[in-house]
Amino acid sequence: MSELKNDRFLRALMREPVDVTPVWMMRQAGRYLPEYRASRAKAGSFMDLCMNPEMACEVTLQPLDRYPSLDAAILFSDILTIPDAMGLGLYFETGEGPRFKKTVTTAADVDALPVVDTLKDLSYVTDAVTTIRKALNGRVPLIGFSGSPWTLATYMVEGGSSKDFRKAKALAYNNPSLMHALLDKLVLSVTNYLNEQIKAGAQAVQIFDSWGGALAHDAYVEFSLNPMKKIVDGLIREHEGRKVPVILFTKGGGQWLEPMAEAGADALGLDWTTPIANAKQRVGHQVALQGNMDPAMLYAKPDRIRQEVANILKGFGSGSGHVFNLGHGITPEVSPEHAKAFIESVHELSEPYHKGD
Amino acid sequence: MSELKNDRFLRALMREPVDVTPVWMMRQAGRYLPEYRASRAKAGSFMDLCMNPEMACEVTLQPLDRYPSLDAAILFSDILTIPDAMGLGLYFETGEGPRFKKTVTTAADVDALPVVDTLKDLSYVTDAVTTIRKALNGRVPLIGFSGSPWTLATYMVEGGSSKDFRKAKALAYNNPSLMHALLDKLVLSVTNYLNEQIKAGAQAVQIFDSWGGALAHDAYVEFSLNPMKKIVDGLIREHEGRKVPVILFTKGGGQWLEPMAEAGADALGLDWTTPIANAKQRVGHQVALQGNMDPAMLYAKPDRIRQEVANILKGFGSGSGHVFNLGHGITPEVSPEHAKAFIESVHELSEPYHKGD
Repeated sequence: MSELKNDRFLRALMREPVDVTPVWMMRQAGRYLPEYRASRAKAGSFMDLCMNPEMACEVTLQPLDRYPSLDAAILFSDILTIPDAMGLGLYFETGEGPRFKKTVTTAADVDALPVVDTLKDLSYVTDAVTTIRKALNGRVPLIGFSGSPWTLATYMVEGGSSKDFRKAKALAYNNPSLMHALLDKLVLSVTNYLNEQIKAGAQAVQIFDSWGGALAHDAYVEFSLNPMKKIVDGLIREHEGRKVPVILFTKGGGQWLEPMAEAGADALGLDWTTPIANAKQRVGHQVALQGNMDPAMLYAKPDRIRQEVANILKGFGSGSGHVFNLGHGITPEVSPEHAKAFIESVHELSEPYHKGD
Repeated sequence: MSELKNDRFLRALMREPVDVTPVWMMRQAGRYLPEYRASRAKAGSFMDLCMNPEMACEVTLQPLDRYPSLDAAILFSDILTIPDAMGLGLYFETGEGPRFKKTVTTAADVDALPVVDTLKDLSYVTDAVTTIRKALNGRVPLIGFSGSPWTLATYMVEGGSSKDFRKAKALAYNNPSLMHALLDKLVLSVTNYLNEQIKAGAQAVQIFDSWGGALAHDAYVEFSLNPMKKIVDGLIREHEGRKVPVILFTKGGGQWLEPMAEAGADALGLDWTTPIANAKQRVGHQVALQGNMDPAMLYAKPDRIRQEVANILKGFGSGSGHVFNLGHGITPEVSPEHAKAFIESVHELSEPYHKGD
């Protein structure tokens, strides 16, 4: 593997000194980019794109080529590859979001689910990781990722997206041991999946807990945080002679940062509702923080975007331990010029905060 | 006006001693009740039901007749009556949620908006309040309500519901003075609207800030909390020789309870993501708390519901200042028997917590 030329992102996650605050964007390889839309049109469906390592590599690199200030690449894939590999039959309906042909509702359904063997069932993902690492040639680190067990379970039980998670919550509340049996299989699958991504070349991993924030506090700890903790405990934490940082991101989890900081991850992702100064004060001595500009701020004029970046940098204040990001994925309607203003202003405005690093 | 036979709800909001914890449910007059669905079918559309004081009274009383343990009635109406009265043309499309024929995007649009004169423009609402108060005959207090200015503004700018509030946020970020001009008109309208409800007989009022939680902290204070504060400052706080408590409910506002507690309201509504023990510790010396069971818990078996009620009562602990409720509105698919288990268990299980009141 070639030497890493820019390790700001990894250093900040380990709370080591950096020259400027590193930046990347969730969903940075996405529909807001015309070059992405062209690749997507060429590939066919969204899943065709995910399952073709060369194409996945192509779109992963697009934002890095357009925005040289980006400090990390993230594997282009979907959080629902695992339930798909378990045999549920993922498909996408236009304007409807992801759907599954089969759902999980009974003990027999859970028993029938295999634990994912990544190298056999999801080799297109590890192939993509290998291909991207080669293409990156040490430019920036590559982030691997997975959905959290609870997040994956909601899709598997509901059969797709949901507004109120009625079926998943009813199962969790009425039959917690069955929900735990499902979560346990997902913990094993996700652990294997992330470890194989690391072995293939992912230099950091992020667990996306998109729907943990829909739970009440106690239920969050039981059904979302504890399974993520088991995953973190089972991850390879050092590879190629370097730490492999783990980022845990629960959207809507701002009230629960203290228990999240105890989960063993190196960093917590923040959505935009949490003042980062407050988060740093609460858990900054334990973990790095990633975030957290409102993605809707990218609809504002570039000057306003820069001002918001300045506000968040000031909120975090001096020292390392901050990876700048949006508080959620960038949306398709954003102008690439606005994304540029965001990315560039992070390096431009953050230098004074690292004088003492 | 006849004497109030059950004032537990009002007493708890003022943090005065009570015998048991009072309980009501947001959206308690709603589609989960077969008698509601029958009235709705008789009335025609949802807005036909809202605009007919006799019918609005009928459905307001239905949950009280079915569940004698309910400690409050809430005016049957919609949060979007104000923008409708401002001339935007509210209508409902099946499965699509509320829509407006006109939207607000320019300074000219904002200038053209009238401030609502409730007795002239929304007399069907004050007539409903008068009718319901008469029909209640002192059984329990009647709650009036309004949407918050920010929440109303999102619908007016977007033209309906939204997932990411793109247009409303872009307007707020790019042209804050125009957003404030819109919010100022809404502040005047909502203040007038709630005061006229109070004069017509509402014994407490709640401000529903459904979408304040979609904002970042600073933007929440600027665009949602400060306008609500102006409303609270302008409300009639005593009527018929009794305090008229004000409840402020920002869904998703659990991280901002401290600034919310400074807004001058008597009580804060909590959604289910905030542990109530934590909320009490943070702001319980300043305000009463209302909430906060996950409405999805009503899909669980009655025993599990009772257990959750017990958990929340234990979380709040001893003393007054707690009004039990769901953390959001009850959903149409819930069984009325499950709602019964919820409501009855609050009185049954809360007595020990009020021995010292």
